[in-house]
Amino acid sequence: MPEPLLKVDLTKPAEEQDPPVHNRWHPEIPPVASVNPGDVFRVECKDWTDGFIQDNDDASDVRDMPLSRVHILSGPVAVNGAEPGDLLVVDLLDIGVLPDYQWGYTGIFARDNGGSFLADVFPEARKAIWSFDGIYASSRHIGGVRFPGIVHPGQMGTAPSADLLARWNRREQELISKDPGRVPPLANPPTEENAILGSLSGAERDRVAREAARTVPPRENCGNHDIKNLSRGARAWIPVYVPGANLSVGDIHFSQGDGEITFCGAIETAGWIDFHVDLIKDGMNRYGIANAVVQPSPIEPHFSPSRYLLFEGISVDDEGTQHYVDATVSYRDACLKAIRYLGMFGYDEEQAYAILSTAPIEGRVSAIVDIPSACCTVGLPVDIFDFDIRPSADGPARADRGRLATPR
Amino acid sequence: MPEPLLKVDLTKPAEEQDPPVHNRWHPEIPPVASVNPGDVFRVECKDWTDGFIQDNDDASDVRDMPLSRVHILSGPVAVNGAEPGDLLVVDLLDIGVLPDYQWGYTGIFARDNGGSFLADVFPEARKAIWSFDGIYASSRHIGGVRFPGIVHPGQMGTAPSADLLARWNRREQELISKDPGRVPPLANPPTEENAILGSLSGAERDRVAREAARTVPPRENCGNHDIKNLSRGARAWIPVYVPGANLSVGDIHFSQGDGEITFCGAIETAGWIDFHVDLIKDGMNRYGIANAVVQPSPIEPHFSPSRYLLFEGISVDDEGTQHYVDATVSYRDACLKAIRYLGMFGYDEEQAYAILSTAPIEGRVSAIVDIPSACCTVGLPVDIFDFDIRPSADGPARADRGRLATPR
Amino acid sequence: MPEPLLKVDLTKPAEEQDPPVHNRWHPEIPPVASVNPGDVFRVECKDWTDGFIQDNDDASDVRDMPLSRVHILSGPVAVNGAEPGDLLVVDLLDIGVLPDYQWGYTGIFARDNGGSFLADVFPEARKAIWSFDGIYASSRHIGGVRFPGIVHPGQMGTAPSADLLARWNRREQELISKDPGRVPPLANPPTEENAILGSLSGAERDRVAREAARTVPPRENCGNHDIKNLSRGARAWIPVYVPGANLSVGDIHFSQGDGEITFCGAIETAGWIDFHVDLIKDGMNRYGIANAVVQPSPIEPHFSPSRYLLFEGISVDDEGTQHYVDATVSYRDACLKAIRYLGMFGYDEEQAYAILSTAPIEGRVSAIVDIPSACCTVGLPVDIFDFDIRPSADGPARADRGRLATPR
Amino acid sequence: MPEPLLKVDLTKPAEEQDPPVHNRWHPEIPPVASVNPGDVFRVECKDWTDGFIQDNDDASDVRDMPLSRVHILSGPVAVNGAEPGDLLVVDLLDIGVLPDYQWGYTGIFARDNGGSFLADVFPEARKAIWSFDGIYASSRHIGGVRFPGIVHPGQMGTAPSADLLARWNRREQELISKDPGRVPPLANPPTEENAILGSLSGAERDRVAREAARTVPPRENCGNHDIKNLSRGARAWIPVYVPGANLSVGDIHFSQGDGEITFCGAIETAGWIDFHVDLIKDGMNRYGIANAVVQPSPIEPHFSPSRYLLFEGISVDDEGTQHYVDATVSYRDACLKAIRYLGMFGYDEEQAYAILSTAPIEGRVSAIVDIPSACCTVGLPVDIFDFDIRPSADGPARADRGRLATPR
Repeated sequence: MPEPLLKVDLTKPAEEQDPPVHNRWHPEIPPVASVNPGDVFRVECKDWTDGFIQDNDDASDVRDMPLSRVHILSGPVAVNGAEPGDLLVVDLLDIGVLPDYQWGYTGIFARDNGGSFLADVFPEARKAIWSFDGIYASSRHIGGVRFPGIVHPGQMGTAPSADLLARWNRREQELISKDPGRVPPLANPPTEENAILGSLSGAERDRVAREAARTVPPRENCGNHDIKNLSRGARAWIPVYVPGANLSVGDIHFSQGDGEITFCGAIETAGWIDFHVDLIKDGMNRYGIANAVVQPSPIEPHFSPSRYLLFEGISVDDEGTQHYVDATVSYRDACLKAIRYLGMFGYDEEQAYAILSTAPIEGRVSAIVDIPSACCTVGLPVDIFDFDIRPSADGPARADRGRLATPR
Repeated sequence: MPEPLLKVDLTKPAEEQDPPVHNRWHPEIPPVASVNPGDVFRVECKDWTDGFIQDNDDASDVRDMPLSRVHILSGPVAVNGAEPGDLLVVDLLDIGVLPDYQWGYTGIFARDNGGSFLADVFPEARKAIWSFDGIYASSRHIGGVRFPGIVHPGQMGTAPSADLLARWNRREQELISKDPGRVPPLANPPTEENAILGSLSGAERDRVAREAARTVPPRENCGNHDIKNLSRGARAWIPVYVPGANLSVGDIHFSQGDGEITFCGAIETAGWIDFHVDLIKDGMNRYGIANAVVQPSPIEPHFSPSRYLLFEGISVDDEGTQHYVDATVSYRDACLKAIRYLGMFGYDEEQAYAILSTAPIEGRVSAIVDIPSACCTVGLPVDIFDFDIRPSADGPARADRGRLATPR
Repeated sequence: MPEPLLKVDLTKPAEEQDPPVHNRWHPEIPPVASVNPGDVFRVECKDWTDGFIQDNDDASDVRDMPLSRVHILSGPVAVNGAEPGDLLVVDLLDIGVLPDYQWGYTGIFARDNGGSFLADVFPEARKAIWSFDGIYASSRHIGGVRFPGIVHPGQMGTAPSADLLARWNRREQELISKDPGRVPPLANPPTEENAILGSLSGAERDRVAREAARTVPPRENCGNHDIKNLSRGARAWIPVYVPGANLSVGDIHFSQGDGEITFCGAIETAGWIDFHVDLIKDGMNRYGIANAVVQPSPIEPHFSPSRYLLFEGISVDDEGTQHYVDATVSYRDACLKAIRYLGMFGYDEEQAYAILSTAPIEGRVSAIVDIPSACCTVGLPVDIFDFDIRPSADGPARADRGRLATPR
Repeated sequence: MPEPLLKVDLTKPAEEQDPPVHNRWHPEIPPVASVNPGDVFRVECKDWTDGFIQDNDDASDVRDMPLSRVHILSGPVAVNGAEPGDLLVVDLLDIGVLPDYQWGYTGIFARDNGGSFLADVFPEARKAIWSFDGIYASSRHIGGVRFPGIVHPGQMGTAPSADLLARWNRREQELISKDPGRVPPLANPPTEENAILGSLSGAERDRVAREAARTVPPRENCGNHDIKNLSRGARAWIPVYVPGANLSVGDIHFSQGDGEITFCGAIETAGWIDFHVDLIKDGMNRYGIANAVVQPSPIEPHFSPSRYLLFEGISVDDEGTQHYVDATVSYRDACLKAIRYLGMFGYDEEQAYAILSTAPIEGRVSAIVDIPSACCTVGLPVDIFDFDIRPSADGPARADRGRLATPR
């Protein structure tokens, strides 16, 4: 158990943390610490909303969350000797929740504040609070389900170079320009509002804030990958774009389903990570790597393949319109089918939506060449439910209502 | 080992099979056999191209394949007592290749004849031939890789009702109408050319041929799902749309990677399936099911999660254009990154493309809410290679060339 | 699917097979075929009893089985170039049951004819017949249980050298001499009775019969290993003791639990194996190997570790006597505890005994240093039962009787 | 993260702990705390030797360890409402090492002080010290190997009733009486020496010390089970013999191989466990349970079955003597074969012995009916080594010496 290299104080907002934190990506955000290749060190992280979401039964915090504040990231940590073109080898030796933050939350973000994957079906803000029993999570808002967490940081990355940052801003602005007034927006441009940039201050801070990339998308620095399998015991190789690499991390998830479909879709929490870092010199060029490569952990929760139910989705939307090999539409179709199915067991649709977003479900691109439909599947592990969800000769419709908890 | 209910003769074309086969979906294609719930029976299947692709080192057959002939399906088998609204419970008790067809092929279809997922990058037809050593596959065209197959039918489904068929035709024609001359086409409309419709003949055959749906896409009858995990030992629940359900099957794959990205992307072969069928009366309504639900097999080849390499893709295309939460673009990006990476070990890009399409790779929708990018990942099992593909301090660029087989 | 190198005729007894078979181990049993390193070939095998056990509901065949006839082995196959001191690399590419033998049996052997692990508790002969539904086995004699098979040859080995054979005979005779009249016997000495020795005949056959080792025990040539994990897709490295190695195989099991505790404890059947062989020259010396080393298959049926129930056994026998770190007594204790537990769900003890012997149960030596007890565990996969066998607040005693099949 | 119900102070010996600890099993050791069914609570534990073994490079502490001091156990915890005949449902929600004890040790105990499974081959005391990198363990004394831990308490149990205790003492004394002077002893009788009995004092303490069972063997109260799979996330059902159940726990292992063959064979450490307890009333009778039943955890480290090497052992000892179906002799044979094999890669035999004892190896009773030999196997996961340990055409003998660390 290494000493914390970077600590957080859960009683204070992001602006008052020591060392300072940040919520943008920019090459000029100063490192708060440096380490050598081979070092082991602990980094603590606040939850992604800086404590805005509370452990209560009211989703107004999700509804009103100022999204320009996210994600609160710890770092950057400079790795001595790292140069652009290297690969940073990042071992996540262990991950846990902070002693003073022993709970988590899932938010369905409202259509007009962030939105979610199925925002048109679920336009209103909702929330579920989760309790942790050691390796297991359960929720007072969603009955009948309990699962081991795949704890991971939803966001982790190296600092972009100035060139790479410029490329990000250009391509995202081009997208925004296609429909600038859209709700939710097509992308989020840099904004000074709520920008936190480590130790920068004054005019320099203001300039960087106007340039710095927002943290929501995954990009070539790994970024907000939300790959649930980058968990405790995993390794990532991440491209280095600036001297020192400048590794930052945050957005700790106790668990997440593939897709993280409710947006604040994982079980969000505050936690710590024990890192080991190393370098592969000139690795980007030697391996042709231009984004993160991940080796998952041998201790991922595992279920027999025969203990999943897979729901088949196609590229046809709710109105019956056929889309051309569109995996997004297909994944949406699979998710809606799984939600409808869970509803037959007595879940509210919002509960089912939250289960898909948080439990260790498997989202797959099964076929992407069968014109005009992609076939995506959503796999539900049956062992996480305390009743049998498989179809049977005498099963639901809408059975077992009484055994499930009060809906949110 | 049940007696074959439906046999095929590999020496004869589809038109001369007894019982007759079909290559379209239509409610009026007559069943060729009937079974009772609880029955066990074997169905033999030709390869999807009706033997057009040959075991040789020349891809001109892939280039010239008349796609209006596919997929050759065995059936329909009527299940006594099945009524619209039921769920057909289909157990795939075992699957194997036919004794006289002990090999398989993978085709990269040309851009102007079918195309593939990366048709713009790989516009020309290519082919790889695979040998089977019991449960393992290897190819004389792609060195250094060998893996256990996840044998499955790429296509399996129930007959659509007239209403459902009409809906399919309408929505797909609407899509085609957006760009009728596109190459490859946005979708394939019904065509009399090469239509094979079981025992139908004369004017009835011609009318049905003009109405019947082509077989390439997955649809609400399961169809061309290409879900690799619907393998030997698996179960599927499939909606019933016509009396008797009318189950058909074909397109046997010895192995396939998620996405089946080269289009004829699996290891295609001719094989047999031992089925057990049963019914859940009124199951569609009781479980809210409107497409197949699949329970995979306990004997899927399995690898430790820590023995995969995951490549992260984002919704940015080759020209650097940002797309809005587009999982198709993101999966494409992940695939291209994995192909480039394998190239560093000495593979031609076409070889790497074929590996991704055939080996038991995992394609995942990791995050689909991180505006403006979806994050999809492609997971390569490292144990299928006879050299270590993980990044190391002193590894490739473009090493090991000599140890790999001659490229196609 | 390679052509059979060695075929069997199920309608004829062992003595009339062509090529001849054998049921003893001896260096002078002549090879019936030869292959080269790198060859792939199929070997067919009769069931171990030469068809003595029948598919009926009467265990008198188990009771009366002449054990000097077992095991019927196919081979030997000579591998060109193999020399004493080499390692024979044996790939079991695929394994299946013979088309004309689509069933299996399990026998509890009587105390006075072979016996079993718990012969004192179960002194009488019993039998269970199994049906195969593709990869799954179930029995009309044991309800509520169905599982995927781990098909494997219970016996496989190379021929012993004359020296090695002499050592076997000496050490086993020394054991027998300690209690020559014991029932069941401590070991089985060579006997001419029922000895089948391939193409040997006349005086040579009689001499060899008097010398040749019986086939029941595992020995340094791999032999009757009954390692269930040496299944389809697995590899074994086996020491070579005679020129040509002389590989023989038989005793096909559709499935077996660790321990094979009822003696004829697996699901015994007749089958075929597709082999690939190779050599590691001087491998015994270079790797210090003096018995088989096995690499299991990636397609073993697998269950989540959390879907097993482990029963803890200690080195205390039924009379309460403490034995000194005795793993045999401890494994027996664990088995008896599991049998008693299953009885609470309505199984007869003989049914439970047969389940432990045939299903994919895990038998482990958990601790063997905790003086004076070894701790062995028996692990039952809960997913093979169609009811929940885990302890619960309101579960058995002796519930569910009606739902299980009539006991044998 | 529950508050610790029971804490330990690593700076103080067992006699000075508050609450008091104990190192014997006896019904009259007073509970130090009580909980209700449904409660969650943390228990801290010293290492089993009370800190006797030190983090250094000298095994004299192992040699001189006074074994009458072990095992230091925390508890008993009384569960309100528990009555004899109930089953105590014990969930191990999470387990970790103590912040001030971030290392572990393995001891090969000397033949004349405790001994080990292979004491005659390894008569002298040896030691290996292990470092923890998050979920992984490695040792400065054993190179080339690193593995994820399966953290578990080696010892956990309920208090015996007076009757059960008397039965233990009687049967163990009978065994001792067969060879009272044996080294190592056949069993360890009660002794006042070093007995620590919680808050008992004076004459009562002395009486109980003379009666109380030593802690080395597993017994009907679960006890020193050393089942590595009773890990974080697992559940055990343990018989209740006294009112309140009186649960005690200790002997934390960071990792262990099946068999724990060097005696102090796991990676021993000091740690904490988060428990949840519940009751099944009258469960012993209703389920026929007379010792612990264990459901392992879904997050056990897992490896593909095809990434193990299994070594086959038979019931023949080092002198070539055949034993009758003796699983202990067979497991010994398998272990010796694995040790010899690892030696060919440059390990000292003591290093190999320690690897088998600590790494997640699988020890199986493969066959226990093949008279006169049992067949046991030892399975080595190949992925824990940083070189390929599988036999190959050009591999060792005794290669790679230089790459391994200096032997102990």
